[in-house]
Amino acid sequence: MLKIPSHQVAGHHASNGTRGPLVDDSGRFYKPLKGDERGSSEVTSYKQLSSNAKVPDHICTFFPIYYGTKVMNASDGSEHPHIVLEDLTSNRENPTIMDVKIGSRTWGLEASDEYIAKCLKRDRETTSVQLGFRISGLQIYINEEVGFYKPARDLVLKSSLDDVRLLFKKFVSSGPFEETVLGPDRGWASLVYGGPNGILAQLLELKAWFEDQTIYHFCACSLLFMFEKELALEGGSPNAQVKIIDFVHVTEGRGVIDHNFLGGLCSLIKFISEVVGDHEDHITQDGDAQ
Amino acid sequence: MLKIPSHQVAGHHASNGTRGPLVDDSGRFYKPLKGDERGSSEVTSYKQLSSNAKVPDHICTFFPIYYGTKVMNASDGSEHPHIVLEDLTSNRENPTIMDVKIGSRTWGLEASDEYIAKCLKRDRETTSVQLGFRISGLQIYINEEVGFYKPARDLVLKSSLDDVRLLFKKFVSSGPFEETVLGPDRGWASLVYGGPNGILAQLLELKAWFEDQTIYHFCACSLLFMFEKELALEGGSPNAQVKIIDFVHVTEGRGVIDHNFLGGLCSLIKFISEVVGDHEDHITQDGDAQ
Repeated sequence: MLKIPSHQVAGHHASNGTRGPLVDDSGRFYKPLKGDERGSSEVTSYKQLSSNAKVPDHICTFFPIYYGTKVMNASDGSEHPHIVLEDLTSNRENPTIMDVKIGSRTWGLEASDEYIAKCLKRDRETTSVQLGFRISGLQIYINEEVGFYKPARDLVLKSSLDDVRLLFKKFVSSGPFEETVLGPDRGWASLVYGGPNGILAQLLELKAWFEDQTIYHFCACSLLFMFEKELALEGGSPNAQVKIIDFVHVTEGRGVIDHNFLGGLCSLIKFISEVVGDHEDHITQDGDAQ
Repeated sequence: MLKIPSHQVAGHHASNGTRGPLVDDSGRFYKPLKGDERGSSEVTSYKQLSSNAKVPDHICTFFPIYYGTKVMNASDGSEHPHIVLEDLTSNRENPTIMDVKIGSRTWGLEASDEYIAKCLKRDRETTSVQLGFRISGLQIYINEEVGFYKPARDLVLKSSLDDVRLLFKKFVSSGPFEETVLGPDRGWASLVYGGPNGILAQLLELKAWFEDQTIYHFCACSLLFMFEKELALEGGSPNAQVKIIDFVHVTEGRGVIDHNFLGGLCSLIKFISEVVGDHEDHITQDGDAQ
């Protein structure tokens, strides 16, 4: 029972006549392999990352599980090889999701001049050069009545510095973005971003590894943030999770740290810390005012 | 008594008929102001950095002292405005010096397409894109007989990844680079790079600030490493010091951390840690062999 993923927020989409990712009922995600060397490079990266003993266990949990490759009926009806991965949202109801492409540079050292020019243009037009990352896509679950807020890809990519700040606040807003003087209420900031299992703690764990590891460079990869508002409403943990995805441009580190990923990651950590900090200041101010 | 600096390892040099930096006997360094907006931008940066109360004192010590500007006889004989700065080497005899330009990107967001293309070409041809920094120049004091090892600028800029590793070892070599199986002996690594006042400790102090500060972006700036071998030979501290120089392209941070500088700085820290670590392993191995 293959179907088009419900919760994909960035990347190529499948539709009738267009080849794109598929999911099944058993929690697997099928991503069509690119025909050129990018396809084989992606397979190599997933294979290596899932089997390299030098990558510590607590870091491996940031990668989607890799199940191999499979030639199968693609979404456009053709026979085509796919990478088989863990479907990261299969166990989630109405997940709120954000895809953040990390790095101020999304082209690799060995890329052609033409490819570099194309990436550089995109990196300059989006926030990548300025912030060291860009939001590639997101969906925010509002409630049963309204469903999801899922802005169009082009709109998301046009985000300015201030738009990005706002999106990080909206991402953890508890209602349909009723704005206070200080912006969206950020009701879930402490639970989702903060705390020992929050997104910030997971990013700091990644940071510590990236400060030291010189095995791989994660060029043009994304961090995926996910959580479930409804779990939090029921008084449980929102199950906030960070994953690294899109390994097409993962390369060997040759003894050098991935300063491009690390720089962007530190910038992202600073942004999210400020949303948590502002929110806590906000709570304190309200408390004082009572 | 103005003269051409003896210990300049990178940047424009003064000579008869060419305008370049000068020093005097009182410990001041006179840098000719660029005529276009870069000149005024550099003055603004030095002024702001030396007076901004938000920059903590222990960080201000990384900047050369700024004394203002002065119209004076330039090295080419013309009347020209100069920035007046602290001469960082005036109190040092035979300093060993390295100039490391930080950042995988040396162009700013507002630069013209032409300027970006020029910088990008240089960043790709040198180690900047790959390592997040490049060595722009160096001089290593060998001894009274030999004097300095000071490779030509073009040669330094052509350094590969392995050349950079070797230069960081040569920089702290105790002799005229007698090579062991493991490369130059790195006799001063622990004293110069390591220890509570070493270069590594100073870089980590900078790193902590750059992880948090969003006031300035230090685009195309250099870190200058300096120490005196002779002081160490006499049994004292080698007086290892790190300074940040070249503020032409310092811009406002607009609430974003300088991920480009931070990434390069982390990469540099990793390189230097490995020289210290390898050296200590080396000593331990020798010890075991006895």
